[in-house]
Amino acid sequence: MSDILDDHNDFGLQCPPPFHADQVQLDHGGGGQLSQQLLEQVIQPRFANAELARGHDSALLQFGDARVAFTTDSYVINPLIFPGGDIGKLAVYGTVNDLLMAGARPRYLSCSLIIEEGLPLETLTTILDSMAAAAKECEVAIVTGDTKVVDRGHGDGLYINTAGIGVREWPGTIAPQSIQPGDAIVLSAGVGRHGLAIMAQREGLQFDTPITSDCASLLPAVTTLLENGIDVHCMRDATRGGLASILVELAELSGLSMTLSATAIPVSEVVVGGCELLGLDPLYVANEGCFVAMVPEAQLQAALTLLRDQAVSRESVQIGRVDKKGEPKLTQGKGRVCLQTAIGSTRLLRRMTGRLLPRIC
Amino acid sequence: MSDILDDHNDFGLQCPPPFHADQVQLDHGGGGQLSQQLLEQVIQPRFANAELARGHDSALLQFGDARVAFTTDSYVINPLIFPGGDIGKLAVYGTVNDLLMAGARPRYLSCSLIIEEGLPLETLTTILDSMAAAAKECEVAIVTGDTKVVDRGHGDGLYINTAGIGVREWPGTIAPQSIQPGDAIVLSAGVGRHGLAIMAQREGLQFDTPITSDCASLLPAVTTLLENGIDVHCMRDATRGGLASILVELAELSGLSMTLSATAIPVSEVVVGGCELLGLDPLYVANEGCFVAMVPEAQLQAALTLLRDQAVSRESVQIGRVDKKGEPKLTQGKGRVCLQTAIGSTRLLRRMTGRLLPRIC
Repeated sequence: MSDILDDHNDFGLQCPPPFHADQVQLDHGGGGQLSQQLLEQVIQPRFANAELARGHDSALLQFGDARVAFTTDSYVINPLIFPGGDIGKLAVYGTVNDLLMAGARPRYLSCSLIIEEGLPLETLTTILDSMAAAAKECEVAIVTGDTKVVDRGHGDGLYINTAGIGVREWPGTIAPQSIQPGDAIVLSAGVGRHGLAIMAQREGLQFDTPITSDCASLLPAVTTLLENGIDVHCMRDATRGGLASILVELAELSGLSMTLSATAIPVSEVVVGGCELLGLDPLYVANEGCFVAMVPEAQLQAALTLLRDQAVSRESVQIGRVDKKGEPKLTQGKGRVCLQTAIGSTRLLRRMTGRLLPRIC
Repeated sequence: MSDILDDHNDFGLQCPPPFHADQVQLDHGGGGQLSQQLLEQVIQPRFANAELARGHDSALLQFGDARVAFTTDSYVINPLIFPGGDIGKLAVYGTVNDLLMAGARPRYLSCSLIIEEGLPLETLTTILDSMAAAAKECEVAIVTGDTKVVDRGHGDGLYINTAGIGVREWPGTIAPQSIQPGDAIVLSAGVGRHGLAIMAQREGLQFDTPITSDCASLLPAVTTLLENGIDVHCMRDATRGGLASILVELAELSGLSMTLSATAIPVSEVVVGGCELLGLDPLYVANEGCFVAMVPEAQLQAALTLLRDQAVSRESVQIGRVDKKGEPKLTQGKGRVCLQTAIGSTRLLRRMTGRLLPRIC
């Protein structure tokens, strides 16, 4: 491993350290290594079943002749309204995007509100209007819901849970286990905007070019790929933990390694500048409107052409590929993600460790 | 109306007063009239669709040849662990019961946790173990989930959201709109235990006979009815707002009136005593393991025999019936619930007004 810079603690990749905390810490919710520990060592073993073990954003279910996907997320973002979006929009797009990542057409959402006593009605209605507009845009119906109110000091204005059901209209199983050696890895947009927009707002920072969240529906990007016959093997939106964390997770779940080119990954100048100021690595900053897709190399150009035709994915670019069998790197361990840097060195990516951006979604 | 005692404010039943609060109040989450206002005047109009308008606990959906039900609830109960149950058990049973009330066999649950920083790991694992045991008992798989952690002071230990999907294996549409004039109204168990157990724990009260929550899965009760050909028209579990509030809601949704016999409604001695002490009306106290079913009068005895054969519904009894067309009471307004009291008077039931038991589920 002499040519690989490993700038994180040297934990085994497939075997995170044992869970030893006696209390849940904020870092357990950040989407990085501690989140993985909590999930894999505390939560998943208790609910053990094949669907959870798949490690996908959505469960893949079958009812009669219908193949559906089912997913959920709770949203606890602070602040509730931020540059480029709000918790309501995020709660719709986030769950819609999770269904899309399983190759499902989003159809129905639930909406469950946990409101803190004293939330201004105007804030609530602004957020509900935003949810309704986002649902309309994504062609989903909010068909069931729940509302709870908690006493002052026991919430933070509003938490929203959405669960979603989508229909897998297209053949094949789009999942981490379907990734193939040699697949091209496509990224749909520049990284780092959502996390940086939230952090800048929290810290009261102003940039010459204002940074807005990339919070968006991935419906046009995903449907153009699937409707035009691209044999997408896997997709994942680069949310909590950022691009690096989700690629490491996919590498581990598929048992395959990946090689990325650092110079190919789009990061806007303003994000680079903001991240330097705040000491953040853009590869670990959360996004809410970009995803990676693993596609057969033979369909790469077709996929890029289709994606670039949609506003949300017009920056689409290949950022690397899944290593082929027998390539030297694979002998150094399965499920690794290597980043070839601009200066020619190779950096081994890890999941995010510790707290980067709490309450980012 | 001279023979009807109306002991609540005289709001129009089908037309609650306009929503005028500029902040959300704790009472908006109690399951009574203020909850209805928030839902009907603020939330539902924004998400308008036929499924929401049905006012059912679950949305009734169709995928290909499969008829499914979809529901969600967030649980914010305080305390997390209470006599007879805990938030985890409640989150599984509650969502399972909502699916059952739509005549669906529960199949899959999601589980989304909002954990407050500092929650003891032991509390979390106790609750997760309880969820897992409840899921196993109910024959449902927890197939997808999410975990968020919020900073200290912005939660209350743990909030849980579960969403659920069930399959409507049996013919017919079990929903408020299917209630028929003349239907017998069956109640499956004595009322008031859950709410009283929570209140007693909060207030530090001790009774000679300890009161435990009735928190339970209704799976055996509902499946015995449906598998044995009882033509159930509607079911509803008597949760937030208690038996009175859910019957008023069903009367309004169906446009039919109901007459109940107060002496027929089972309330245990210890619940009566506890409610007197705390100034509560057992008809408005939340339950977590009892439900009402509207069944054709011709099948009443068969339904009671089946229900009494299951532990969870062994106290089942007819508590009243849906008024037939042309009966005098109907001329006084549709969608009313009249309670014939022990002393021979008639009391018009309303939804619960104001705060009775906040954070009860």
